[in-house]
Amino acid sequence: MKIAIVGTGMVGQTIASKLEELGHEVYMGTRNANETKSRTDVNQMTGKSFSDWHSENKGISVVNFSDLPSDCDVYFNATHGANSIDALNMVGDKLNGRILVDVANPLDFSNGMPPSLFVCNTDSLGEQIQRTFPEAHVVKSFNTMNCYLMVNPSLVQGDHNVFVSGNDESAKNTFTSLLKDIGWGENQILDLGDITSARATEMMLPIWLQLWGKHGHANFNFNINAAN
Amino acid sequence: MKIAIVGTGMVGQTIASKLEELGHEVYMGTRNANETKSRTDVNQMTGKSFSDWHSENKGISVVNFSDLPSDCDVYFNATHGANSIDALNMVGDKLNGRILVDVANPLDFSNGMPPSLFVCNTDSLGEQIQRTFPEAHVVKSFNTMNCYLMVNPSLVQGDHNVFVSGNDESAKNTFTSLLKDIGWGENQILDLGDITSARATEMMLPIWLQLWGKHGHANFNFNINAAN
Repeated sequence: MKIAIVGTGMVGQTIASKLEELGHEVYMGTRNANETKSRTDVNQMTGKSFSDWHSENKGISVVNFSDLPSDCDVYFNATHGANSIDALNMVGDKLNGRILVDVANPLDFSNGMPPSLFVCNTDSLGEQIQRTFPEAHVVKSFNTMNCYLMVNPSLVQGDHNVFVSGNDESAKNTFTSLLKDIGWGENQILDLGDITSARATEMMLPIWLQLWGKHGHANFNFNINAAN
Repeated sequence: MKIAIVGTGMVGQTIASKLEELGHEVYMGTRNANETKSRTDVNQMTGKSFSDWHSENKGISVVNFSDLPSDCDVYFNATHGANSIDALNMVGDKLNGRILVDVANPLDFSNGMPPSLFVCNTDSLGEQIQRTFPEAHVVKSFNTMNCYLMVNPSLVQGDHNVFVSGNDESAKNTFTSLLKDIGWGENQILDLGDITSARATEMMLPIWLQLWGKHGHANFNFNINAAN
């Protein structure tokens, strides 16, 4: 597939690398591509600079938001939640009729750590994005786990789940095929229903943060264990 | 132990029955004990009236809130979240210095189904209760599962977890011993830290509700699957 990643941070890099490794044609969008590609400051989370990362991932085209191809099969929103709508607005009309996989969370760091959510309970970031881009087919997923687990489910042994929310069945089917491509098993993928169910997964962030603190690492995931 | 259950609905009945079966001395508090005991209307969730339930559980003393013993080892808040503080106020000073296990969720049905939460994100019902009764040792738990699973963890096969939040270590230890008494395994019990972590478990309600709808039954639970 032809895939665009909106955002160039750790999450965007991790998803982009994996999808390119799987043979997809991958573009990465940023506000100022030349500035991003020349960055030599080390990302505290990944331990390397964007420039170093890109030199190891030369097959991925890093372009300005406005230069992303308009015919990608799937667009990923991998920006910080607080910046998502602004960034997606710079991608613009290209999103019309396209699949937009939103992996962001509405984290609010304005009161320090741990972050709270800037939207929750009766609305969600996924719904805000769907309302802002009504012609896009928004699929909310991946937001309940660390990015390394998104692209390598075998990092956690045994059963664990990835949730999927969205209004468009065809868009969810396409994303599900990508999930299987990555290595997610059919029985690990839980379709929660329409985009309003993004409220449910975004509101799992506080428990995720608690568990991250408790475990001291992010190699864990939620498994829904149900009686038959 | 001597145990008081505040609330006489399905959750209170289920916890009370189990603890009495395990040999504890169980009291149940309600606004008007005579009225509650004479109720013959069938509870839609349990399929029986309070009167019928009590005739099968004669060993449990049903009394007015104000007549609950003041020397119980553990008090359970099993009222609806919206009524919890009013009900606990009627229990009053007896809670000072005592363990108060809060199993309620701050469900807001004012906009119909599914319910939203009347407090979340930067506060929680567990914290509201702790602030209202600063001398009580509030332990938040059991609020991420159906009541039948609370008292019978074997209803769900395989690994699954019960979360515990609270400021007082001794209170959490006493509650943990009750959990083990009920049948919860040491490795199933996850202590999340202080009472502010009740935000995290209360905010799991939306995903619980989504999964309840998806499964069509409530015999499921969350398992945290972590890499070693």
